[in-house]
Amino acid sequence: MVVGAGLAGLAAAEALRAAGASVVVLEARDRVGGRAWSEQLGKARFDRGGQWIGPGQDRLAALAARMGVDTFATWATGEKILDDGDRVRRYAGDIPSLGPLELVQLHLALQRIDRMTARVSARDPASARHAVDLDARTVAEVARRLPRRVRGVLDVAVGAIFGVDPAELSLLWFLAYLRAGGGLMNLSTIQGGAQERRFVGGTQSIVERWVERLDVPVVTGAPVRHIEQPGGASGGEVIVTSDRGRVAARQVVVAVPPPVAAAIELTPAAPARTQLLQKVAMGAIVKVCVAYERAFWRERGLSGEVVSTRGPLSVLFDNTSADGAQPALVGFVQAGPARRWNGDTTAIVAQLVRWFGDEAREPVAIVTTDWSAEPWTRGCPVGVMAPGGLTTSGTTLRQPIGRVHFAGTETAAEWTGYLEGALESGERAAREVVRAL
Amino acid sequence: MVVGAGLAGLAAAEALRAAGASVVVLEARDRVGGRAWSEQLGKARFDRGGQWIGPGQDRLAALAARMGVDTFATWATGEKILDDGDRVRRYAGDIPSLGPLELVQLHLALQRIDRMTARVSARDPASARHAVDLDARTVAEVARRLPRRVRGVLDVAVGAIFGVDPAELSLLWFLAYLRAGGGLMNLSTIQGGAQERRFVGGTQSIVERWVERLDVPVVTGAPVRHIEQPGGASGGEVIVTSDRGRVAARQVVVAVPPPVAAAIELTPAAPARTQLLQKVAMGAIVKVCVAYERAFWRERGLSGEVVSTRGPLSVLFDNTSADGAQPALVGFVQAGPARRWNGDTTAIVAQLVRWFGDEAREPVAIVTTDWSAEPWTRGCPVGVMAPGGLTTSGTTLRQPIGRVHFAGTETAAEWTGYLEGALESGERAAREVVRAL
Repeated sequence: MVVGAGLAGLAAAEALRAAGASVVVLEARDRVGGRAWSEQLGKARFDRGGQWIGPGQDRLAALAARMGVDTFATWATGEKILDDGDRVRRYAGDIPSLGPLELVQLHLALQRIDRMTARVSARDPASARHAVDLDARTVAEVARRLPRRVRGVLDVAVGAIFGVDPAELSLLWFLAYLRAGGGLMNLSTIQGGAQERRFVGGTQSIVERWVERLDVPVVTGAPVRHIEQPGGASGGEVIVTSDRGRVAARQVVVAVPPPVAAAIELTPAAPARTQLLQKVAMGAIVKVCVAYERAFWRERGLSGEVVSTRGPLSVLFDNTSADGAQPALVGFVQAGPARRWNGDTTAIVAQLVRWFGDEAREPVAIVTTDWSAEPWTRGCPVGVMAPGGLTTSGTTLRQPIGRVHFAGTETAAEWTGYLEGALESGERAAREVVRAL
Repeated sequence: MVVGAGLAGLAAAEALRAAGASVVVLEARDRVGGRAWSEQLGKARFDRGGQWIGPGQDRLAALAARMGVDTFATWATGEKILDDGDRVRRYAGDIPSLGPLELVQLHLALQRIDRMTARVSARDPASARHAVDLDARTVAEVARRLPRRVRGVLDVAVGAIFGVDPAELSLLWFLAYLRAGGGLMNLSTIQGGAQERRFVGGTQSIVERWVERLDVPVVTGAPVRHIEQPGGASGGEVIVTSDRGRVAARQVVVAVPPPVAAAIELTPAAPARTQLLQKVAMGAIVKVCVAYERAFWRERGLSGEVVSTRGPLSVLFDNTSADGAQPALVGFVQAGPARRWNGDTTAIVAQLVRWFGDEAREPVAIVTTDWSAEPWTRGCPVGVMAPGGLTTSGTTLRQPIGRVHFAGTETAAEWTGYLEGALESGERAAREVVRAL
């Protein structure tokens, strides 16, 4: 039995089916895909959720290839924009146009973060030297002494990757996350980085074809409320109660985001896991897709990439469809502004006009997705760990409880928080089950 | 309609009934009282949950008096013990027996915390000067430069009050909490402090009599899953779905701990609240009650109070019944050791022997309560706020969502986290409802 039909749950279901197990997937929503969710906007299908693939994400690349879904390069030709609230400046390269002294400080800060990252294991961060001290500090502390504009750029990067302010992250957990994804610059960049390519037709094209080909029933509209192991640690079956009824299974994989998993009652109780789950909070991102008649920014030698230390939008990327038929931009409202989001896009259009001129004033369409309003995800892109959680619980999010196993990108030891991590976690949970069957 | 039959929910129900409203209380458990829970042990009834009342907790005192439940002084006669892991030392007064330089450092640290506390409002901490900076820091940072044993004593105090390590607390939220309860020393001490008196027959005696006298039906075994406001902000009824069915109400008060509230789906969604709730985690405390034939510690001039910087028990108090018939001690396993708790009391008895000698080796009974294993509380004594939550959400835990109001001690602006705060929050939520009806 698998709970959750996102990438993690489907990866687990496929691996279990391949091992000869009989599998059912229970999904709370009326759709599959979890944080992979695509919808038509103008002349193309765009992603409300995860949409990028980068080097090293081999499981995701292989899956897309198997499903016959092509990828194409994220548009990155032209100059970028830094808006520091006072001025709008163009720049080239990966590092925003700061003053020379500020650039040195930013480079030093990035080097320091890289050095710290190299000392923390993605798989077992609590084993790092000084783990307790690192876990008692927030990422904001590391950045506190940096000049205001340098800190602003780092805040934007952290917000885009995690959907939170640096103040909300355990430094230890942050370093483990960077380690799992190849470092801060790798996670922040397009070319050679985690935003390098996109999927033709959107990420959900992969999921739809996958579900069609999987020889596994997926029951939607079935939120799971209670998982009981009447035999305790000594074996026996697992009873899963969803809004569609009670079913028994030999083993269960729970593949939902941590706060959704926290709402599922486990019997017998798993107090250490209950405590650890409470330390995890989903980030806040409102994803904004803006479609235009023409990609006018390209005509001006701009790539469409913007870093803004003033909201509501903090980052922006070109999001034109693969065939070029539907020019578009995609941006994130993140952390605080995402939590205070009221649905009004006026300020967003004003930002686009500030960056690109009057042509930005009249989008063909503008679609916003507030992931914090999705009850079966509760935020995006990922669940982040508060200080003090990792080193006091003596357990991890992926530690099984008897015959209940845990998947989901937050449980991944590679590419935690990414589509790739979801696949890795599902495969790992399936291996646990196969060993136990 | 009230969700939750703890002190907050019952206070709301009583105030609403008094205002002439028709009220029903839905309770997930098969008992009432929430974190107030008493059980027979040996010759007396002891509290598995909240058990103390101190000066300034006027609502709780008045309620107990109305219900005819007497209070008696917590035993505090005799010397106390500090166990710093190396040595066991006796001391008198409120401050453990440290070296003279350490004592100075502890006093300075307490004074510094007091000064910081005075600058933060309990009702609106985000309005404090430097609120964002304070919210980006953990309490561990404040204590980092203190000598090891001084830090150890502060860790024990924080663990006993919150059930977490200082690393897990937003400094801003911590200061607001201290402010709401009269300061750190007030919360840590027996005489003149929050642990000054106890209830004859246990706290639940109050609750049981209260429920009998309330003219309000309490439906147990009815966990609420979904609260819908089909009319949105524009009015209409509220539909509450529990495991006992669907009912309509004009207004609803949700009076359950934050992680339990987070598991209730709200329609329409309340994304800012969803995000803020994810920043709150219940502390971890295993409450240990040990009954003996004789109060042998008293005979040796000891009060029974212990502070231990080595676990599993971190604090201990005399817990003998009001009539003296059942001698007992009560202690807390807290934070990390509570999360790693495996139910084995051997190490606890060894601590008691270390402190009090061989007579401690044979208790009449020993009862442990791991609140993290309670699915309808998920930890104890209180939900704590992680860094970065208070200042980025633009909302508070007590901000109503349409016709849904929120109570529970975590929403209190006075005595947050205490039984008194639960009563305050219930009364405040009832006032909101009465204004809206």
